[in-house]
Amino acid sequence: MNKENVKVAIWGFGAMGSGMARMLLNKKGVEIVGVCDMHPERVNKDIFEVLGVEKGERKSVLINPEIKEVLTEKCCDICLIATDSFTKKAFPKLKFALEQKVNVISTAEEMAYPKAQNPELAAELDKIAKENGVSILGTGINPGLIMDLLVVTLTGCMTDVEHIEAKRVNSLSPFGPAVMEEQGVGMKVDDFNRGVEDGSLAGHVGFSESINMIGDAIGWKVEKIEQQMKPIVTTVDRQAPYGFAAAGDVAGVNMTGQGHVNGSVLIDMIHPQQIEPEMEGTFTGDYISIKGTPEVNMVIKPEVEGGLGTIAMCCNMIPHVINSHPGLKTMIDLPVPRAIMGDMREFIYRG
Amino acid sequence: MNKENVKVAIWGFGAMGSGMARMLLNKKGVEIVGVCDMHPERVNKDIFEVLGVEKGERKSVLINPEIKEVLTEKCCDICLIATDSFTKKAFPKLKFALEQKVNVISTAEEMAYPKAQNPELAAELDKIAKENGVSILGTGINPGLIMDLLVVTLTGCMTDVEHIEAKRVNSLSPFGPAVMEEQGVGMKVDDFNRGVEDGSLAGHVGFSESINMIGDAIGWKVEKIEQQMKPIVTTVDRQAPYGFAAAGDVAGVNMTGQGHVNGSVLIDMIHPQQIEPEMEGTFTGDYISIKGTPEVNMVIKPEVEGGLGTIAMCCNMIPHVINSHPGLKTMIDLPVPRAIMGDMREFIYRG
Repeated sequence: MNKENVKVAIWGFGAMGSGMARMLLNKKGVEIVGVCDMHPERVNKDIFEVLGVEKGERKSVLINPEIKEVLTEKCCDICLIATDSFTKKAFPKLKFALEQKVNVISTAEEMAYPKAQNPELAAELDKIAKENGVSILGTGINPGLIMDLLVVTLTGCMTDVEHIEAKRVNSLSPFGPAVMEEQGVGMKVDDFNRGVEDGSLAGHVGFSESINMIGDAIGWKVEKIEQQMKPIVTTVDRQAPYGFAAAGDVAGVNMTGQGHVNGSVLIDMIHPQQIEPEMEGTFTGDYISIKGTPEVNMVIKPEVEGGLGTIAMCCNMIPHVINSHPGLKTMIDLPVPRAIMGDMREFIYRG
Repeated sequence: MNKENVKVAIWGFGAMGSGMARMLLNKKGVEIVGVCDMHPERVNKDIFEVLGVEKGERKSVLINPEIKEVLTEKCCDICLIATDSFTKKAFPKLKFALEQKVNVISTAEEMAYPKAQNPELAAELDKIAKENGVSILGTGINPGLIMDLLVVTLTGCMTDVEHIEAKRVNSLSPFGPAVMEEQGVGMKVDDFNRGVEDGSLAGHVGFSESINMIGDAIGWKVEKIEQQMKPIVTTVDRQAPYGFAAAGDVAGVNMTGQGHVNGSVLIDMIHPQQIEPEMEGTFTGDYISIKGTPEVNMVIKPEVEGGLGTIAMCCNMIPHVINSHPGLKTMIDLPVPRAIMGDMREFIYRG
């Protein structure tokens, strides 16, 4: 076993980045060596203070707004980058980290399968990673596990697959103000529809990534992807910690998507997200139904919580990314994710 | 893409081996180049005749009782060996195949994690595989997926794991006479208990493999494994195609197992198998409940059918085993299993 701790830097200290720090501080054999974030409330503060975590014998880690001071060549084993949803926006950051010869895990939803929407940038990242002898992965709960990797895994016990439906019914109530805004919570229906039309409302980012990941994994050529985004209009007032929807307004967004293979819709994605779904009798859960031989019908109830799930997926994939051959990797290239309950150094095969 | 078909040999042409042949004959880019089996009813017959499958343009494959005539050096890419449940019994066959510089997938339950019960044989297989530049994997539905790999995958979205329960409630009704006998279906309770005591009744083989696979994957040191085997006594007559249990006799076996970690039972396995479970209100399913953060409660209903599931897992892992670095591999070392719906050659990265 390598005696040195696994060294991690974190870029972006919002809900995801700070959640990963909190998780890693509870693990053995790993340490946080640097954090970059520009938020005025956090800059120059010690992460232990920001997180409210007992520092004990550990060294202070001051949140630094200058990435060039945080990330220098081979200063750490891996950098967790939790700043963006889109590959194009994340790209300069990912490139910079790779060029410091540091492995990368990105929370950007599009990075879960970047060749779906940005094949040139995906090829470029693969090249940069290889040139620098490191690897890069995008992951999270969804895309990353629930509506794609878990689907793929379940097809593994099937001799034949005819149709896939992945449905994730989740609650937005645990999320903060940014998510409320992105998902249109509390909007008037007309404003919501305008936001969909002009592209200012993102909704869930990931159908294209999940559908392409499934298709490539099992050998279905996805010819076309369609996607719809509709308001979930509440008939009662709904109040969540960071969002409110009055009766008649938007409590969330119902996203649906279809992957066409051989001229038919063979992959269906259904993903309604809203605050306080139980108030109108919607119960949350993750559902995978695969028609074929044998049929597989899976349910996880309630749904795996998105925030914690993403934090866990990113941290738990650290050893696989460090162990991997250089290049751009996706969840279907690497061994299965797993919780890290032992010393993280024992998960690493160096040299 | 490599133009040559993936070439497969099959050793053992019982329910599993013949099922794999049937599956592979429906796939593109793969061909069966040899079959070894000694059963007098099958020997020297064409597999197409035995399977009742239209031969079309394909070459005959005569079932040969002499493995030395079926398996010669590099005669194929991979050999599927479906002859045994135990590593020790399968070992000479596995060794022979590896020495022909042919990759191997074994259905032997103990081979799903051979270091659990035969660490020396596991090390030996790893060495032989590496010396011959090929790789070897044991897999199946269980052990192989339901009570281990799927558990591991689901822990991937957890920051912390406290306790794992994997429960598989399945029906033995689809199985043949050999399974009826192995599981004690139709026995008197006293005879069953004697069979458990003298070791002549195997029951489910796999708890040790599944528990060790989970423990090693997530970094729990398994200190001790216990296992119990109890008769499921029916109160009504139950009739299945190949088995019958009169009221008062044994309809199947209830197996339970515990993995001790840090002095406590942190892994519970529950696996009742019986014919016609619905006759007394038992409904089949696969259940994974993981306590920790966040909790994950998964249900697959009905359970994934064991026979088809094992056939699919073995065939679907062919590309991963061919693509792998030489050596002994387990399901937690390789990328996730997946159905093969496209040309199998496109799943192979040669050279």
